Amino acid sequence: MSKGPDTRRAILDQALRLASTGGLGQLSIGLLAGAAKMSKSGLFAHFRSKEQLQLEVLRAASDRFVAKVLAPALRATRGEPRLRALFENWLAWDRDEFPGGCVFQAAAAELDDQPGPVRDYLVETQRDLQESIAQIVRAGIESRKFRSDVDPDQVAFEVVGILLAFHRMSRLLRDEGAERRARRSFDDLLARIRA
Amino acid sequence: MSKGPDTRRAILDQALRLASTGGLGQLSIGLLAGAAKMSKSGLFAHFRSKEQLQLEVLRAASDRFVAKVLAPALRATRGEPRLRALFENWLAWDRDEFPGGCVFQAAAAELDDQPGPVRDYLVETQRDLQESIAQIVRAGIESRKFRSDVDPDQVAFEVVGILLAFHRMSRLLRDEGAERRARRSFDDLLARIRA
Repeated sequence: MSKGPDTRRAILDQALRLASTGGLGQLSIGLLAGAAKMSKSGLFAHFRSKEQLQLEVLRAASDRFVAKVLAPALRATRGEPRLRALFENWLAWDRDEFPGGCVFQAAAAELDDQPGPVRDYLVETQRDLQESIAQIVRAGIESRKFRSDVDPDQVAFEVVGILLAFHRMSRLLRDEGAERRARRSFDDLLARIRA
Repeated sequence: MSKGPDTRRAILDQALRLASTGGLGQLSIGLLAGAAKMSKSGLFAHFRSKEQLQLEVLRAASDRFVAKVLAPALRATRGEPRLRALFENWLAWDRDEFPGGCVFQAAAAELDDQPGPVRDYLVETQRDLQESIAQIVRAGIESRKFRSDVDPDQVAFEVVGILLAFHRMSRLLRDEGAERRARRSFDDLLARIRA
């Protein structure tokens, strides 16, 4: 049994925590070596460059988001239960998963003007997420739980907006009413699309 | 006539452009000196520290937001025209004002875990903005243009969400449908609160 994969996972966990507070940009192999109490050369054996490290961190975050938010939602019944599970899992993710809030949120603001493979990967994850929400809405329409005139992509846009406003209000403003506001907007949205 | 205020304004314009793409964190006096083609000591005469520079940049952005987005909206008729003017001015701000998109958006993600006077000032501007939106909604309710059971703070939360989702979709995903989606969500919101 090799310790390689476990070590790698432990390093990525540490990197995710750092990225959630300080962003991906400050995530150098040097800084991570200090935080993970490893040598720089040891870290270089796992990640060949800063860019490679940032990509791996986003990949690890994406795997975790799928495991904690998306996959459990897809096991719920089509229609309202599934869309609500996605929303609740996502709120919990944004609130509890990392010390500095969602890693993708931190990365999105940082990378929007920085072309390259890290930005490309981030864009891909965000497009996939919007498409997954739209797909959940489409499944609800097909099962006649949601109205047939609902636009799945518009619902996806609005769900993203609620989560982003929640993130802003809770992370930046530290407003304790953020979760209540987000739930109310989501409940209103559900009431509008219900068949 | 002193050239001081003009020079200061020109430096802050340059700083705002830099902050919109690379964030406030990279905005050092050294970098700005290079971009503004001034000596470091010349810049130190205007801004005594990096923190002071960041604060002044946010203040300049805030003054400009008030002049371009909020003040013109407040000159529109109460109710729908005023809320729509705010929304349209804000879309235009997010789209056209800076090369890297809204400076506050870049700062919000950067500063949410960095306590200090720059964060405090940013929080103040965002609270003021939410309060201004709520106040526009309240004025609409008082003039019986909006329904009496509308919650002004909830509308403010949703307007912020629409703008944040627009920002994400246009800046990160470069999706040309972002503006159409944002307008549609806003029109739906207006239809729900109209008296």
